[in-house]
Formats: sequence, C-alpha cells, structure tokens
Amino acid sequence: MTNDSIRWQKIASEPGPELPLFKVRYDLLRHPSSGEEFRRMVLEAPEWVNVVATTTEGQLVMVEQYRFGIGDFTIESVGGIADEGEAPIDTAKRELLEETGYGGGVWQSLGAVQANPATQNNLVHIWHADGVQLIKEQDLDPGEAIRVHLMSVDQVKEVIADGRFLNVIALTAVARAYPIWDYVSGDNP
Amino acid sequence: MTNDSIRWQKIASEPGPELPLFKVRYDLLRHPSSGEEFRRMVLEAPEWVNVVATTTEGQLVMVEQYRFGIGDFTIESVGGIADEGEAPIDTAKRELLEETGYGGGVWQSLGAVQANPATQNNLVHIWHADGVQLIKEQDLDPGEAIRVHLMSVDQVKEVIADGRFLNVIALTAVARAYPIWDYVSGDNP
Repeated sequence: MTNDSIRWQKIASEPGPELPLFKVRYDLLRHPSSGEEFRRMVLEAPEWVNVVATTTEGQLVMVEQYRFGIGDFTIESVGGIADEGEAPIDTAKRELLEETGYGGGVWQSLGAVQANPATQNNLVHIWHADGVQLIKEQDLDPGEAIRVHLMSVDQVKEVIADGRFLNVIALTAVARAYPIWDYVSGDNP
Repeated sequence: MTNDSIRWQKIASEPGPELPLFKVRYDLLRHPSSGEEFRRMVLEAPEWVNVVATTTEGQLVMVEQYRFGIGDFTIESVGGIADEGEAPIDTAKRELLEETGYGGGVWQSLGAVQANPATQNNLVHIWHADGVQLIKEQDLDPGEAIRVHLMSVDQVKEVIADGRFLNVIALTAVARAYPIWDYVSGDNP
C-alpha cells in the first residue's frame, strides 16, 4: 500500500513572524485527494535533548524550576536546546553539568522522539547517564533559577502522581529507563 | 523548603504576533535572585487530547497521516484540539469518531500531561477507550487526509522501532495503557 492517498505536495514556503525559540515558516501544500491548497505553520527549532541521570548511589538527578508556559513549578529530568553546530550528546552532557553539577557516568542513547510532529521540525534526543557524580557547582545562565533534587524512582512516581512532574518529554525519557507507569491494560493483544 | 529562591515574579504581559494554532503572549518576569528582568514567550492553546482506543477484538486504532512539522508520515494514536467551550472528553470522542469511524467502548481517564511547560499553557488529556467498534465512516475536515490502521501491541512496537511512531504525546498515551518500552534499567533504586 503506497502513501499517495495521504501524501501532501508542498508548493511554496515563506517565513513567518519573528519569535524567540522557534523560527516560523509557512508552507503552502496541496491536499492529496481534493487538490485544495492549505497554508500550514512549521516551527523550526534546533535539536532538543533530555537526560535521565542516575547517580552512583542509584538516585535520579531531577530539576525543579518555574516554567513560564504553565506559570508554575515543575520537577523533571534535565532538558536543553542544542547550540548551533553542537552535537546533541554534547548538549546533553553540557546541560546536565550546567544545571546540576553532575557529570561522568556511562551514557546510553534511548533514541529520539518528536515533541510535536504536526508543527515542529526537530527531534528530542534522549539519554540515560548511569553512575553520574557531583563534579562541580551549578553554572546557570542569568535567565535560569533551578533547584536540584536527588530522587528514588518511587519518589519520582510520587511527584508524577501529585501533578508536579507532567512534562511529556521528560516523562517519556524517564519511562524509557525506569518502569514508572502502572499499566491500565496489561494484556498484550 | 519554600520555592522563593526559584519563584519568578510576573511584571507585565503583552500580546505577540498572530499565529495559527497558538496565541502568542510575552510576559515580563523578574529573576528570583538577581532581580533582572526577562521577556518570555508563552504559546497559549486550547486543551489537547489523545486517545488510546482498543477494539472489541483487542487491536489498537492508529492513524497514519502526513505531518507538516516534520514533513513526513507518522503513525499515532488519535489526537485533537478542543473546540471553544468543548469538554476534553467530548473532544476525544469526537476526534476518534471523525478520524477513524470508531466509537463506543468504556472510557478511562489516563490523566493529563504538559506538551511543553516551558512555552505552552495547555494540557493534553489522555484516555483509554476499551472495546470500541466501527460505527460510521471517517468524517474528515477538508484539511485532513488520514489512513486508519488496526494494530496489535507488537505491531505498535514495530512502528516505534522503525521510526514511524515517535510522537512523544501519543507514545506516552500508549505507554500509559500498554507495556511498549523495554526498560534499559529494570532496577528500582
């Protein structure tokens, strides 16, 4: 079965308004069956990263910060945005070290996910860093204010349950490394 | 321990440029320790939904479509955006029926997650709909082109592995209902 019946044809692209964090692009596309033209927004962004870091004592390195989108605090695994020309693995190691002071350990890729394939063009690269240690002080940007928490998996499940850890990207990162979900359906059809 | 050391104070808000899907707002906020002022972008959006639907035969109802952000096809559980004044559960039932023709079944809330707490103000509400049946034809918007796939959990794991199912919101929805991840670390510290 080919995908021709659901494949859109891009006709043109033009830049959108200036925004922080994203570069807005508008694409003009032709619907696969009706031929009608639609204008769709794409938010171009650098690659993102997320790091599930486990200390040599077996605790997860989590960060608490005020998040401007929701206007409230969250607890999450460390995330970040790649600088221009920076490999995602280097972004991940840099962000973990800057935001928490933890580094070292054995790094394993947990693959990449799409934050929002409908509107964003980038991927979120996920790692598990096992056996990290505190090797320096936090080194935050002037625009950051972050508190570090060392947590057991049970404590992580508690902050999910009480609504403080709901960031879907960080949830997926942690869920790739540790069994945090109680499945509603354990049956495997 | 209070959060005063990481609590930002909002000083002012102003509207940003016009965009589809999001209403852009800029907040002016004061850093908790330095007192320096920063302008942060918030993308205001209606509530989003995602539905893990299982047929009476035990198959998952998945949708394949061309995603404009990544410029490629994805396979996912059904997602959608609440109309103005629409309760998220009604959005979820409407979107499943419109995009796939499946309905009915027993609906269980799997909670809500944040698509991006750093920039977005909305939540994604997740449901498991167990025992759905094909009750009508697809009823797509003019701007949609969607193919329905009925898949076993093993088939879902295959399209995750081959990179066709990477939408982090839908991955979390399915992972809440079915054990799709092989944990890199099964230890529970």
